[in-house]
Amino acid sequence: LLSLLFPLRSNIDLLRATRLLFRQLFELESCTYTYLLADTETKEAVLIDPVLETVDRDLKLIHELGLNLKVAVNTHCHADHVTGTGIMRKKVVGLKSAISKFSGASADIQLSEGDKITFGKQYLTVRETPGHTDGCVTLVLADQSMAFTGDALLIRGCGRTDFQQGCAKTLYQSIHEKIFTLPDECLVYPAHDYLGRTVSTVGEERKFNPRLTKNLDEFMDIMKNLNLPKPKKIGINIMLLYSPITTYALIVDIITVPKDFQFCDTSLHRFVAWNLSSASFHFSSSFPDISVPANRICGLQD
Amino acid sequence: LLSLLFPLRSNIDLLRATRLLFRQLFELESCTYTYLLADTETKEAVLIDPVLETVDRDLKLIHELGLNLKVAVNTHCHADHVTGTGIMRKKVVGLKSAISKFSGASADIQLSEGDKITFGKQYLTVRETPGHTDGCVTLVLADQSMAFTGDALLIRGCGRTDFQQGCAKTLYQSIHEKIFTLPDECLVYPAHDYLGRTVSTVGEERKFNPRLTKNLDEFMDIMKNLNLPKPKKIGINIMLLYSPITTYALIVDIITVPKDFQFCDTSLHRFVAWNLSSASFHFSSSFPDISVPANRICGLQD
Repeated sequence: LLSLLFPLRSNIDLLRATRLLFRQLFELESCTYTYLLADTETKEAVLIDPVLETVDRDLKLIHELGLNLKVAVNTHCHADHVTGTGIMRKKVVGLKSAISKFSGASADIQLSEGDKITFGKQYLTVRETPGHTDGCVTLVLADQSMAFTGDALLIRGCGRTDFQQGCAKTLYQSIHEKIFTLPDECLVYPAHDYLGRTVSTVGEERKFNPRLTKNLDEFMDIMKNLNLPKPKKIGINIMLLYSPITTYALIVDIITVPKDFQFCDTSLHRFVAWNLSSASFHFSSSFPDISVPANRICGLQD
Repeated sequence: LLSLLFPLRSNIDLLRATRLLFRQLFELESCTYTYLLADTETKEAVLIDPVLETVDRDLKLIHELGLNLKVAVNTHCHADHVTGTGIMRKKVVGLKSAISKFSGASADIQLSEGDKITFGKQYLTVRETPGHTDGCVTLVLADQSMAFTGDALLIRGCGRTDFQQGCAKTLYQSIHEKIFTLPDECLVYPAHDYLGRTVSTVGEERKFNPRLTKNLDEFMDIMKNLNLPKPKKIGINIMLLYSPITTYALIVDIITVPKDFQFCDTSLHRFVAWNLSSASFHFSSSFPDISVPANRICGLQD
């Protein structure tokens, strides 16, 4: 009778019962986490924040597990690594890319608050959590047991707010209103961790996050004085993402030009330059100047 | 009525019901995983394979979570990183160290096949899985939902067998008899992964492990021809682990002596040398020669 009333006695029963396959994957150079979620019965899968360098590893695993990858979703436009979404779309038939409509990026699915990304019987709900960038979203599993917070909330930290439309006040409100309102037990899976931590919980971050436990003014002060270096791959990232006619651009020089760099858009056969400090983008002087606002460039390669 | 029959409907209910707190922690230089397990009600905790460099990170987390760390257990004597067990024992009152009795290491608890490491209502069962070293164990959660395989079974790989009492045949038998007999759904948490994978399952490794899916002869042939370099920290490790009278030894030179190196055992105030190729250990010529067999040296600092 007891086993009828409490049919789920052990973790292994639970693993079978939840129908959720979950894998956390790590890219060691940029310390980025990619997450694979699938319905174990229908085999439909979603990949969160794939990284260019680990596309083959991830696709091999997806193949071995017999999964049908439906959606590759980015929590935001990454400045510290190159998304693997573009290449995955070329390699996986039927795969759709997804990103916030406020990211300025092109993708098959433009996400808004409350949208659902469905895989089998499971789904992720979109919560808009801007502040690190305009287009940051947190993806929450249907039963609120897991939240994929991207670069909004990190373990004992948060995303920087000093470039790419960053705004400390907006980030503070996003985290408090959209993430800290989840159950304490909800597992927090960020886009990065640099100290080898793999997961936290909403309860833990509410209690121990050294930035988010402060009031708004103190938080804004902390964020103003981080003095972080620019991420290494912002140039490469923007280059790969920019593609009005869906062809890859090619870096000409990134190492020797510390702030601005030039690259050749092979689709247009002309040089373009990205200015990190002004967050603007224009073609080189050998061609007519064309300015493109930053949020149009930080788009997904499609 | 349905909710009575199936009271655990969602992952978040499951998280609460299992009473298991679980954290996977990563050390980026040696790509080592440390695992924290605790009973969420009694707060008693066990740490598997702590790493010297991340002791403070792990103890901070344990403190924040309000856990009472009872046992720090090593799955084997590590040659690729320095265990954090010795320092943890000095910092945490009542903490006991544990390792296989066949490791040749000193520890508070000498583990044998079938032993239980208890924390609250939970426990880990010891399965002896020699082959990488004589003293390798796999720790299996009571309900067989998780196995901590150390360096015996890795994700799509296995521990090397070319030093430290390594034996390919023994390892093959250990994995097939002690790990592959666990349920397919059992999660496999190894001591390392170098490609950013965090977990596998017994079923997956039975099906896709490129070495263990071979027959014994083929496996032995693969293992004989790996031609791996010696791990970077074997010298440091052995030094810290060797401690007949519980005092740390001090490295004198590890960088400039590629194969053999010397260090000073500060407790004995004399120089000792470790010979990697012969796996023997002796005091320097300025003192009477004393040979110590390898399995006596690869002991835990206690």
